[in-house]
Amino acid sequence: MRSTPTYHNGEMANLDEIKAILRTADAVAFDVDSTVLQEEGIDELAKFCGKGDDITQLTKRAMQGNMDFRTSLGVRLSILQPSADQVKEFLRTHPIRLSPGIKTLVETLQSQKKQVFLISGGFRSLILPVAAQLNIPPENVFANRLKFYLTGEYAGFDETQPTSRSGGKRDVIKELKEHKGLKTIVHIGDGATDLEACPPADTMIGYGGNVIREDVKTRAPWFITDFNELVEVLQ
Amino acid sequence: MRSTPTYHNGEMANLDEIKAILRTADAVAFDVDSTVLQEEGIDELAKFCGKGDDITQLTKRAMQGNMDFRTSLGVRLSILQPSADQVKEFLRTHPIRLSPGIKTLVETLQSQKKQVFLISGGFRSLILPVAAQLNIPPENVFANRLKFYLTGEYAGFDETQPTSRSGGKRDVIKELKEHKGLKTIVHIGDGATDLEACPPADTMIGYGGNVIREDVKTRAPWFITDFNELVEVLQ
Ligand SMILES: [Mg+2]
Ligand SMILES: [Mg+2]
Repeated sequence: MRSTPTYHNGEMANLDEIKAILRTADAVAFDVDSTVLQEEGIDELAKFCGKGDDITQLTKRAMQGNMDFRTSLGVRLSILQPSADQVKEFLRTHPIRLSPGIKTLVETLQSQKKQVFLISGGFRSLILPVAAQLNIPPENVFANRLKFYLTGEYAGFDETQPTSRSGGKRDVIKELKEHKGLKTIVHIGDGATDLEACPPADTMIGYGGNVIREDVKTRAPWFITDFNELVEVLQ
Repeated sequence: MRSTPTYHNGEMANLDEIKAILRTADAVAFDVDSTVLQEEGIDELAKFCGKGDDITQLTKRAMQGNMDFRTSLGVRLSILQPSADQVKEFLRTHPIRLSPGIKTLVETLQSQKKQVFLISGGFRSLILPVAAQLNIPPENVFANRLKFYLTGEYAGFDETQPTSRSGGKRDVIKELKEHKGLKTIVHIGDGATDLEACPPADTMIGYGGNVIREDVKTRAPWFITDFNELVEVLQ
């Protein structure tokens, strides 16, 4: 299967194979922004900081894959410059908007002893509360880390995190396979960086419940808009 | 004078010249640890964090110039890994121990409209309270900046600060001359990195009121152990 990474929705034989991979997988890794969550964390944080318009445009370009991810992240953060106080206040006041069906899907996976991971180009500090709500342990979260000075001023991001670079999700999944003994991993997400994760992910499921990106819809081995489709496969 | 950067205490003609430079200087830049303060900030922070012995040994080596400054700083911090909470609690509980006479000296300089700068290989967050006590504005403080994650965990230091590298004090003084229109700058300090600052500093005064380092005593154009010596020259 790995020799042909671009499947199409219509190919029923392949769809059965993908469902079989999902059923037998050791682990499922989810993208977070516009996948687990209904929104893009950085866009919401930017709106909160009064810099929504600038950042949303740049996030769109990053999602479309027109700009190197690290560059895009650096540019957006250098515009946003979020302070520790802003991030804390955002977390305190901003409700977590889970995508419909994600909680049941994650519970179903966990009840089948499949490990669930969150792998995101967003920020760990925004994602940990989401992980807590889904009973995903912090060590299963891979995301970027904002840095601050003691005064709380923005001080950059951890450039050693794989998720801060293009192809980072691929590298995290490769690492999980090599060092955690996970043989079969399914990756689920809405964006260009999610397509990149397969391979090494054994299959990739495109999710269009919040935003439909044409290249993901076209290139994802299986494209869904409702997480209940996956729950049904698992039952 | 700049052609011979190493003067000796005994040369009286030169000592008169150095005193004249001090009297006519636009600005005086002080080292902080063991100069303005009676102690080394990083050693005190390390003791507070229960890692005093390891760090003190490494600081001594760094001061003696046996190790590249950036390497030494990085090694010490990777051992120390101070959290934001630890730094805040250290600041809250640790008294500022100014060297005798420094307050009068700084007041005398400021009353003569000389700008006073603090240039340190230590940490800005530990030095700003010292600057406040001496009425030195934050923009006249050049030092290293610790970084933290939102959780407060240590996240590295600002590697773009000139004071984080060997020769950094020299670079700060060069910058002050080029961009602040300061023609004559005197640098005062106790360590090897202070000797390096002259030139571009127009002269350097070694201070041995807390610790006497042999190379500084030998190589400094003028070596003092009491700041009142400078107050007298200025009066
Ligand atoms: Mg996404
Ligand atoms: Mg010193």
